[in-house]
Amino acid sequence: MPESWVNLGERIGSDLHVDLSGPGSRRAVLIRALRDAVREGWLAPGTRLPPYRSLAADLGLARNTVADAYAELVAEGWLTARQGSGTRVAERAAPPKRPRKPKPAPVRPATPAHNLRQGTPEAASFPRTAWLAAARRALSAAPDEAFGPGDPRGRIELRRALTDYLARARGVRVDPERIVVCSGFAHALRLLFDGSRGAGGGALRGPFGVESYGLRFHREILEGSGVRTVPLDLDEQGARVEELTEEPRVRGVLLTPAHQFPTGGPLHPARRAAVIDWARTSGGLVLEDDYDGEFRYDRVPVGAVQGLDPERVVYLGSVSKSLTPAVRIGWMVLPMQLVDGVLAAKGQREAWASVLDQLTLADFIASGQYDRHIRRMRQRYRHRRDQLVTALAERAPHITATGIAAGLHAVLRLPPGTEASAVKAASWQGIELDGLAEFRHPRAAMPAGDGLVIGYSTPGEHAYGAAVEALLRALPPSDALSESPSR
Amino acid sequence: MPESWVNLGERIGSDLHVDLSGPGSRRAVLIRALRDAVREGWLAPGTRLPPYRSLAADLGLARNTVADAYAELVAEGWLTARQGSGTRVAERAAPPKRPRKPKPAPVRPATPAHNLRQGTPEAASFPRTAWLAAARRALSAAPDEAFGPGDPRGRIELRRALTDYLARARGVRVDPERIVVCSGFAHALRLLFDGSRGAGGGALRGPFGVESYGLRFHREILEGSGVRTVPLDLDEQGARVEELTEEPRVRGVLLTPAHQFPTGGPLHPARRAAVIDWARTSGGLVLEDDYDGEFRYDRVPVGAVQGLDPERVVYLGSVSKSLTPAVRIGWMVLPMQLVDGVLAAKGQREAWASVLDQLTLADFIASGQYDRHIRRMRQRYRHRRDQLVTALAERAPHITATGIAAGLHAVLRLPPGTEASAVKAASWQGIELDGLAEFRHPRAAMPAGDGLVIGYSTPGEHAYGAAVEALLRALPPSDALSESPSR
Repeated sequence: MPESWVNLGERIGSDLHVDLSGPGSRRAVLIRALRDAVREGWLAPGTRLPPYRSLAADLGLARNTVADAYAELVAEGWLTARQGSGTRVAERAAPPKRPRKPKPAPVRPATPAHNLRQGTPEAASFPRTAWLAAARRALSAAPDEAFGPGDPRGRIELRRALTDYLARARGVRVDPERIVVCSGFAHALRLLFDGSRGAGGGALRGPFGVESYGLRFHREILEGSGVRTVPLDLDEQGARVEELTEEPRVRGVLLTPAHQFPTGGPLHPARRAAVIDWARTSGGLVLEDDYDGEFRYDRVPVGAVQGLDPERVVYLGSVSKSLTPAVRIGWMVLPMQLVDGVLAAKGQREAWASVLDQLTLADFIASGQYDRHIRRMRQRYRHRRDQLVTALAERAPHITATGIAAGLHAVLRLPPGTEASAVKAASWQGIELDGLAEFRHPRAAMPAGDGLVIGYSTPGEHAYGAAVEALLRALPPSDALSESPSR
Repeated sequence: MPESWVNLGERIGSDLHVDLSGPGSRRAVLIRALRDAVREGWLAPGTRLPPYRSLAADLGLARNTVADAYAELVAEGWLTARQGSGTRVAERAAPPKRPRKPKPAPVRPATPAHNLRQGTPEAASFPRTAWLAAARRALSAAPDEAFGPGDPRGRIELRRALTDYLARARGVRVDPERIVVCSGFAHALRLLFDGSRGAGGGALRGPFGVESYGLRFHREILEGSGVRTVPLDLDEQGARVEELTEEPRVRGVLLTPAHQFPTGGPLHPARRAAVIDWARTSGGLVLEDDYDGEFRYDRVPVGAVQGLDPERVVYLGSVSKSLTPAVRIGWMVLPMQLVDGVLAAKGQREAWASVLDQLTLADFIASGQYDRHIRRMRQRYRHRRDQLVTALAERAPHITATGIAAGLHAVLRLPPGTEASAVKAASWQGIELDGLAEFRHPRAAMPAGDGLVIGYSTPGEHAYGAAVEALLRALPPSDALSESPSR
């Protein structure tokens, strides 16, 4: 036994050794040792501890040190000290039964060989050096008040940078007063809808139109807030927004106009106009989810619908696709009449999104680094998309990538009835991906199509070729339809 | 008129000039100019635009440039193109009426000369250099996957650093599996209670005990989630937790055991034991708000109540007082049975708190910078508290600062009936602060006391002396009681 272990047992009638070698002062070490001894049950409830003078002598410690340790443990409730009865282990300090062994963490599936699940940019591409340089500039320049209570709108530096950027790159009609910074898309939806604190209060409680294919968690946030979702059919012109007029009580609609998620088409100009007309006539609200609007490979990105009427559209964006989901920053460009409600829902002094990241992102945008990064990634993702399309044309010509050349994902249309087996085949090939069915609204009326949603941005640069090869092996053969007559 | 302004009017029958001098390609500039012209109503709905060939000739641009610009604006819905009818300004592009002028931002009170409102650490003390150094180390060392989807528990690096720190500094019984990182205290409460998604679901829907004096926004989050709050009286031993047994349906209790907020006493050891006994007997939950537990000036801080029973206590902390509220990071140390519910409420892939800040904080703690900062601030705040207490003793001996020597605020007890006028007098002296009444539960049964809550951490180092001087001028004179017989 090392010398730093000291036997307490002689004094208290049990063979208790405590380790006095840990880091910190002797007092701190003694406190920890005694606390552990009580906790772990080595010192039973009711046990009388030796007088502090005796223990101090035994341990070679100053009397004050031991007296302080006793006092500390009395204050914490481990020990009790009563006049005349000395210091004892408290009666209730030991739990009535051993605490349950911590449940193991929910099993996460082993990392698949190839991750083609949509939703995240290439993690390795995060521009660490440029970001750190922006952080250094931003933190050096920040006024002291930046480290005080946060403005619930978000830092003015960031709202100014976003105003310039969104007007220039996305055609958004914006000024800093109508921007509210948040920590991402989910946070934005919660601020708009959540419970009694949601920005719209009763106004946003009615049903909302959503696209028949979309992200499940968007639907879940709306439905979880008591907002029924009404699926709109999709056709080659995008969401059939004219269906909104058939549901007289619909209060708004959530759309992905630049690049329908996941099916991949843009909203037709006539539909863009129609949904604004509907909003003006009915008093409804359009939520524009511009999740990947910067990434268009065949032409300059189409501007935001919000530009048609900023008082009827909430424009929503974030850095989750353009930069990384690790920077938890999103933004809402709001109709003026919603600003106060959203701020009230956010909380008086709550910044939510890291103020340090907000300042850094403001510099990153204003210094041109954000544009530079997007240009770089646009080129990279475009190349990946081309690589996928070419491989399909050459080796699986019966399967095509649909949708416009844009974004971080593609949809491969499959022969009817082959999706489920293709997802399974992909899993056998070590590929993580989703079928189209994963994104279908449970009450969608339009015919279901079979397809795979391929997130080509997710793999590392060197892993992508192998992922495409594995995918080709998982695709149904050209005669798959005749092989599954039962569907 | 500068040469870059081009007259479009000749072709379209109105005197319209567009500015082609802006940044970006000629195409982008033309698109912006035409879009603005439609938006602002200079080009009326229905106006036919000149054929692109003619406009290209007029402007000295390539035909493709103008054709592309028209196509873009058609895609965005500003223009319509019909075979045979040419390109026209869309009918509904102009809003039916001028959008309302943006409402001015809610008026914020002018910055007072002296900010003595409790709640924030000294903003100027944020250790920018040490933080940036930690960020540089952390971002260089981070694996690529750190920039992918976040673990809703929080980064393992941070949970490990917190495990070491909280066990050592606060006596918390903790392992990384029971820590969930969040973006601050409000976020933690929402994860526990909010709506149908709250971690406890039905289990946390019953009434909760709270201290009769506390932060209003804590009460509001609970009540906003349908949780009735039951105020517990406070006495010189802290919250009278025995009152919990008188309300048989109470599901839990929210306490500030280390340093009652705002009245300033620690929870007595017997009460610490009693509340754990109550929780075990009743199946209730204790929420331990350890908001400033590190800042004790008279002795080593008392350890957390959580150490008495980690399966009955949720331990809550953040960097908002110890470092800055600008870093939006808090933590919950949870009973194992609540972990899955909190994660479900947080959302599958949501990090909420900036992953970059999480990594930086992990390094900041592990490298000893966090302890160093706290030691430095402890010394500084202790000095400020001493300065306040000394000034009171010398110049307003009828008024004393109550509570233990701890934290970032003090409560000055006032003669009965003088609080409201003292708050008003403080305002006249240019001081921002709150009276005790601000923190009183509306249904509190205990007698109300008069007092001022002084946040001595808020002013800058050089401003503090003047703030104390101003405060002394605002305090009621020693014969104030006899002056206000009506109360």
